[in-house]
Amino acid sequence: MPKISHKGEIIPASAIRKLVPFADAAKERGVKVYHLNIGQPDILTPKGALDVLRNASMPVVEYTNSAGNLTYRKKLAEYYQKNRINVTHEDIIVTTGGSEALQFAFQICLNDGEEILIPEPYYTNYNSFAIQSNVVVKTIHSSIEDGFALPPIEEFEKAITSKTKAIMVCNPNNPTGYLYSQKEIEVLGLLAKKYDLYLIADEVYREFCYDGMQHHSVMELKGLEDNVILVDSVSKRYSACGARIGCIVSKNKKVMSAAMRMAQARLCPPYFGQIFSEAAIDTPQSYFEEVNKEYDLRRKVMVELVNKIEGCYCPTPKGAFYTMIQMPIDDSDKFCQWLLEDFSYQGATVMLAPATGFYSTPEKGKKQARIAYCLCVEDIKAAVKCLEEGLKVYPGREK
Amino acid sequence: MPKISHKGEIIPASAIRKLVPFADAAKERGVKVYHLNIGQPDILTPKGALDVLRNASMPVVEYTNSAGNLTYRKKLAEYYQKNRINVTHEDIIVTTGGSEALQFAFQICLNDGEEILIPEPYYTNYNSFAIQSNVVVKTIHSSIEDGFALPPIEEFEKAITSKTKAIMVCNPNNPTGYLYSQKEIEVLGLLAKKYDLYLIADEVYREFCYDGMQHHSVMELKGLEDNVILVDSVSKRYSACGARIGCIVSKNKKVMSAAMRMAQARLCPPYFGQIFSEAAIDTPQSYFEEVNKEYDLRRKVMVELVNKIEGCYCPTPKGAFYTMIQMPIDDSDKFCQWLLEDFSYQGATVMLAPATGFYSTPEKGKKQARIAYCLCVEDIKAAVKCLEEGLKVYPGREK
Repeated sequence: MPKISHKGEIIPASAIRKLVPFADAAKERGVKVYHLNIGQPDILTPKGALDVLRNASMPVVEYTNSAGNLTYRKKLAEYYQKNRINVTHEDIIVTTGGSEALQFAFQICLNDGEEILIPEPYYTNYNSFAIQSNVVVKTIHSSIEDGFALPPIEEFEKAITSKTKAIMVCNPNNPTGYLYSQKEIEVLGLLAKKYDLYLIADEVYREFCYDGMQHHSVMELKGLEDNVILVDSVSKRYSACGARIGCIVSKNKKVMSAAMRMAQARLCPPYFGQIFSEAAIDTPQSYFEEVNKEYDLRRKVMVELVNKIEGCYCPTPKGAFYTMIQMPIDDSDKFCQWLLEDFSYQGATVMLAPATGFYSTPEKGKKQARIAYCLCVEDIKAAVKCLEEGLKVYPGREK
Repeated sequence: MPKISHKGEIIPASAIRKLVPFADAAKERGVKVYHLNIGQPDILTPKGALDVLRNASMPVVEYTNSAGNLTYRKKLAEYYQKNRINVTHEDIIVTTGGSEALQFAFQICLNDGEEILIPEPYYTNYNSFAIQSNVVVKTIHSSIEDGFALPPIEEFEKAITSKTKAIMVCNPNNPTGYLYSQKEIEVLGLLAKKYDLYLIADEVYREFCYDGMQHHSVMELKGLEDNVILVDSVSKRYSACGARIGCIVSKNKKVMSAAMRMAQARLCPPYFGQIFSEAAIDTPQSYFEEVNKEYDLRRKVMVELVNKIEGCYCPTPKGAFYTMIQMPIDDSDKFCQWLLEDFSYQGATVMLAPATGFYSTPEKGKKQARIAYCLCVEDIKAAVKCLEEGLKVYPGREK
């Protein structure tokens, strides 16, 4: 049997997926499982955009332009302009989800073995894309005590070597829910300028900001046009994770030329998803207002209830729909598995995402888990109750 | 300005795309351009499958399973079984087009710097995926005089080094239209077995076979279950290139485990395209019979007319919807550009794909072009007439 490649060996299985068999087994035993583990919104996808897809004339489902349909790119540029991001359609290439935009960005910005700095904890799949692209992730620790604010810039500077080519942030952040301030984004911009680095921002949660806070994009930075790359997606914005439509945005012509050549190699982004996504730009503001009101309510309930549990703590996230919680436990992976395997409260239990998957540094995140508040308020209350009761009897609870 | 990566620099622009500005300029001058250059079928997409998508209930466009929807994978397994390919849904992972299946296969089978053998001429985008995956393509020359049959197996053996990890074929072939015989597939299988190599087959044109010939898949090879990987796509089968749905198929558990972990990293294949593709499996046989009758007619007209042109030659392809033609010219790139830039006949001209893009060996293919017979018979006649008249007056014609 021929051997598989080293990449094939080491590309990690999703930490959450490892727990899925235990969740399935719990369900088979008749236990209700509340899923706080996954960022799959239960929010309805805008019906108007789906209707446009349903009614579209499509006698032949042809290849679209490799950069995406021109009409869609032009509407996307308008959308960005409304969000204080001054780009034209020529600065945008439509991708198959934010995932492909990340793959393009990694491959274009970094040579094999070069380094990208990312605040930790961070979205797990960055690791897989880094492995696929031979990119080395170096992390800068952000802490739950500071609410996962941007670590001091000196920490970044200490980590910079001759191999460092890029800094990446996710803003608002998955998994922490942290929303970077304008000041923090500017500080990152100065650093990128000083060391001539790319600054890549994953801003797929742009629409989800709370407490009247405003999102600040790296694309707003002046004089950084050649350094900055925006990764975006319609997945969360329109509750359309399956559409697989994202984009890569940059003013850097060389980056966009390389992205276009990579885009040509894989022919085009999805046809149906583009029709949907173009129509989705016309989604009325009221949709987002309602969605944000709902998430805001869930957030407040979640944070309040978690912080009432003895020994638990979570900061108040200002964006996205995640929060990290600190728990009085020995090992988050064990605890999350135990909740599914050995525990139930009134016929139910809860599934969390162990935080170890979001940290590269060993031992970090062992007492933390990520919660996605994508359930209705009633279910959130029941889920947190399960967590509270579970923590009372978990054998690995800290004394 | 930070530098882009070496990969970003060298990933090639599509040879065809380089001609697009010249085609656009011709159109602006009022010249009709017959597109024999691109494999975008004009055949209607099965309406029944599109209607299923239109009528599907999809309140939330969720992530699907990373491997693709289970119902779709089960129907795909049935489809393969009907095609003498004995697989279950567990041997199938749904991908974003055949392109992603190729990317997975390259990354999983070959380490950085390892070699894959491919008969030349071959589908250009294999080069881009090879660059993205740090894979080295080594070609074995197949010749137009032999109708692009499999080169003698000794040629493959001569090319094998300690770095060789895989052989790949496209069957039926793009760009040549060649359909490998059962015997040729078996010979490749023996070679893969002897040297413990992966045998990857891109079989996206499986449905397009003529003159009563039957397609033979590498998946039919006995005792090669751990060596063989099938790359497939719905793009051509259902005239749905934009759906971006393909799959990677293998009985090799380690390969499929690695493919699954890569699939998890990019979350899932397109939701809408999967609904369409699952429904498309129910497309009645009469659809394929009509489509093949139409392509068969086009093929015959094309081959007959091209071979009547003085100094031109093309073999009779037995599959797909391409053929390579030999022309009495100095340089195919120059000629194809000249046709668009400096020539018209009765207000029209023709766009071909220069064959140089399909060869790695310098100088090969300089007198050849690929023709896709994706136009109606009347347009094919007019297009070949333009070619004939163009060849009469082209300044770089061979004396």
